[in-house]
Amino acid sequence: MAFEKTLPKKSENVSEWYNAIILQAELAEYGPAKGTMIIRPYGYAIWEEIQKNLDADFKKRGVENAYFPLFIPESMINKEKHHIEGFSPELAVVTIGGGEELTEKLIVRPTSETIIGTSFSRWVKSWRDLPMILNQWANVVRWEKRTYLFMRTTEFLWQEGHTAHATHEDAVDTEVWAMNAYESLFRNFFALPGYRGIKSRGETFAGAEETISYETLMPEGKALQSATSHDLGQNFAKVFDITFQNKKREKEFVWQTSWGLSTRTIGALILAHGDDKGLRLPPKLAPFQVVIIPVRLDDDIIKECVFLKEKLVLAGIRVKFDDKDETLGFKINKWEMKGAPLRLEVGKRELESGTFKSVRRDNGKENSINKKSLVKDTKKILDDIQDNMFEEAEKFLKENTYKVNNFNDFKKIMETTRGFLEVSWCENSDCEEKIKQETKATTRCKIEGNNSGECIYCGKPSKSKWYFAQAY
Amino acid sequence: MAFEKTLPKKSENVSEWYNAIILQAELAEYGPAKGTMIIRPYGYAIWEEIQKNLDADFKKRGVENAYFPLFIPESMINKEKHHIEGFSPELAVVTIGGGEELTEKLIVRPTSETIIGTSFSRWVKSWRDLPMILNQWANVVRWEKRTYLFMRTTEFLWQEGHTAHATHEDAVDTEVWAMNAYESLFRNFFALPGYRGIKSRGETFAGAEETISYETLMPEGKALQSATSHDLGQNFAKVFDITFQNKKREKEFVWQTSWGLSTRTIGALILAHGDDKGLRLPPKLAPFQVVIIPVRLDDDIIKECVFLKEKLVLAGIRVKFDDKDETLGFKINKWEMKGAPLRLEVGKRELESGTFKSVRRDNGKENSINKKSLVKDTKKILDDIQDNMFEEAEKFLKENTYKVNNFNDFKKIMETTRGFLEVSWCENSDCEEKIKQETKATTRCKIEGNNSGECIYCGKPSKSKWYFAQAY
Repeated sequence: MAFEKTLPKKSENVSEWYNAIILQAELAEYGPAKGTMIIRPYGYAIWEEIQKNLDADFKKRGVENAYFPLFIPESMINKEKHHIEGFSPELAVVTIGGGEELTEKLIVRPTSETIIGTSFSRWVKSWRDLPMILNQWANVVRWEKRTYLFMRTTEFLWQEGHTAHATHEDAVDTEVWAMNAYESLFRNFFALPGYRGIKSRGETFAGAEETISYETLMPEGKALQSATSHDLGQNFAKVFDITFQNKKREKEFVWQTSWGLSTRTIGALILAHGDDKGLRLPPKLAPFQVVIIPVRLDDDIIKECVFLKEKLVLAGIRVKFDDKDETLGFKINKWEMKGAPLRLEVGKRELESGTFKSVRRDNGKENSINKKSLVKDTKKILDDIQDNMFEEAEKFLKENTYKVNNFNDFKKIMETTRGFLEVSWCENSDCEEKIKQETKATTRCKIEGNNSGECIYCGKPSKSKWYFAQAY
Repeated sequence: MAFEKTLPKKSENVSEWYNAIILQAELAEYGPAKGTMIIRPYGYAIWEEIQKNLDADFKKRGVENAYFPLFIPESMINKEKHHIEGFSPELAVVTIGGGEELTEKLIVRPTSETIIGTSFSRWVKSWRDLPMILNQWANVVRWEKRTYLFMRTTEFLWQEGHTAHATHEDAVDTEVWAMNAYESLFRNFFALPGYRGIKSRGETFAGAEETISYETLMPEGKALQSATSHDLGQNFAKVFDITFQNKKREKEFVWQTSWGLSTRTIGALILAHGDDKGLRLPPKLAPFQVVIIPVRLDDDIIKECVFLKEKLVLAGIRVKFDDKDETLGFKINKWEMKGAPLRLEVGKRELESGTFKSVRRDNGKENSINKKSLVKDTKKILDDIQDNMFEEAEKFLKENTYKVNNFNDFKKIMETTRGFLEVSWCENSDCEEKIKQETKATTRCKIEGNNSGECIYCGKPSKSKWYFAQAY
């Protein structure tokens, strides 16, 4: 394979590049059933890094992991009216089990609010049982007509947090805490800045009172909803009768939240950072942070590579020593394409001098690393790469965010560069719908602060500003 | 709840005790769809410990995690004849997706040999691509008429390893390595000795050439197949056309293995070690290895408990400080019931003396632990508990293993104590079937070594001895 020849240029056709790089870098591919995805080891390793870091963050807060069934009886999911309206077009349904037609159809979970809600109704009795803060790492299924690897597949992996609280205040605290955890993950691990805020009524999760979203910017100025956290109010509590006895011995409904982050975020990672040569992975999520490439497969060189790997691994760095029987040029192209943050080249000359050439994937810069300060220098460079990738992404986000005061400018931007538009909107769904029809742009999230003005569409007084963008 | 009153005695009725302790200890409960299971945090934490340790072992061997789709097209699973015969009565089938009848039914995976086989056929081209050693942590579904929490549920969690090799020898090496990993996990973490060996033809995995199993002994002398590793030969390779070019540039079929361990093992853990008071968890898998119980909820006592917890946690010990507003007696009963390996009681007297009472769950022995040697002493006691639980289980296994030479003795034991019987068997499936009909005992696994004799049923010459037992 000559990667550079077969990989479409991201700068020319993002979507062709995206599909091609996922296959070439062996991140994932489509499964045999329509819209399903096989996540290959190189892609799954990214997910494992995400899991490891997010799960540790959750556990610090006292979140407990649990596991709820894949199958939800149809009658149960039908109970919450808004919820089922939101999900019914997307459901996969099991009608046969053990060779027999089932008396009640089983829904393959699209999300677990209903089944966890019924469990909470059994488990929560008193204020002493609250808060209840559970999370599960699981697969969910939403039937999709048009699929796109990682971004939109019939089955995907995610975590879904579900909590119950004695007060609305405590629930909102948790809703915000979860979004803080996501924001920190995106900024510090994904190197992806974004906008966070409340969703419009029309874009709120089916069954929730309020949804907070983290919105990132993808190539071609398109927004991606990257994680959400919901204040469910008492909606599910009332439907599933989740009550507790408060300290005054009165019966009350609990207040709930749910929050989730999925393998879709790997799509964001690929799209946001990649370039014409392939992936660029931020060190904190890269399966291999350093790739050691021998210039030739001579014994003394191999020995040195193994030694360097050992030293770096002991320091907690994820390292690949590529000892395949391939040419140097091929390997360099391969690991550029696969987005390894840093590559170390080891040949005879390096062996003699004790100094190695290192090449950064983010900006192509070369550094020579002395064997004596190998670990320290490598860590320093990896940190620099992580920081630089964040700064680049932040620059891109800022350059593609526009304050817009009239609808003509709005339309013009949506026809050309796209991006995030800061816009006064009256919060009327009619205006939202018309703007969408005319520009394909939707409300992404509300901008905090005192932002009164006039609605960009109808001109009526508006209390707040919103980010609008075309979205994946 | 007064646990001691409502918990049936294990010594009187194992199966009632088993169901009750799982609910009372909040390990799991049945889900709303028949035969499904909700794994609650205290049960899931055990699974997380199992995952953590097994996954680390796998990674040392270079196993790579991946994820394959939940849905397998019906035509794909039907391809391997023996495989589909083995699984077809157990399948759950999706027939509706996105509101429409599907043109091809989708099977909810009962296991992933077929879908991974088709992937291997695309990924494996040359001997350079081999071995390919993948694993996935996933949920699988097998329709079950009679379910039993953890032991047999419609949906369960497991890991399934799938590998492809250039030679049969290399495949068998991996089959054996996987079973070594399981055996080590059972002995060192579960504190569960067992018998390991090859399965009879009739008990071999559907589609495999050979299955190795690890068989543990449960109360009432019943065996439990606790993990299996399969040599798939070239069966799936031939059906799914998984070939590679060898070093001589000839096309060959790959040799494959698969191996799995599931949440069923948590059932084994509960059954094997529990007693009339409830669970007894071995320290290496217990969600909380030490529970600190304050005698009273006074500030100075709470402070001391928090301090002790901090010291133990920093030393890598999993600790629960139970600061709930419950009586001392209630808490002691609760944590005995929940099987925490060691409990530390902290009251005024302990505060003054700097010495704490510790009580072991495995044998009820008390030790006083000096604050100055807290970490060292605690670690020592936890190690002792782990060792002691293994020794107890090994004694039980040995005492319930019988060498039997005639079928009358065989029947008598199966009608009374049960247990593992070491028996000469001619390996003819007729004898196996008749023994099963008359005694409910099945072949568990072959005993290694030169063991010629006469079949216990038909008297004909037999080349080997086998373990027989009634099984879950």
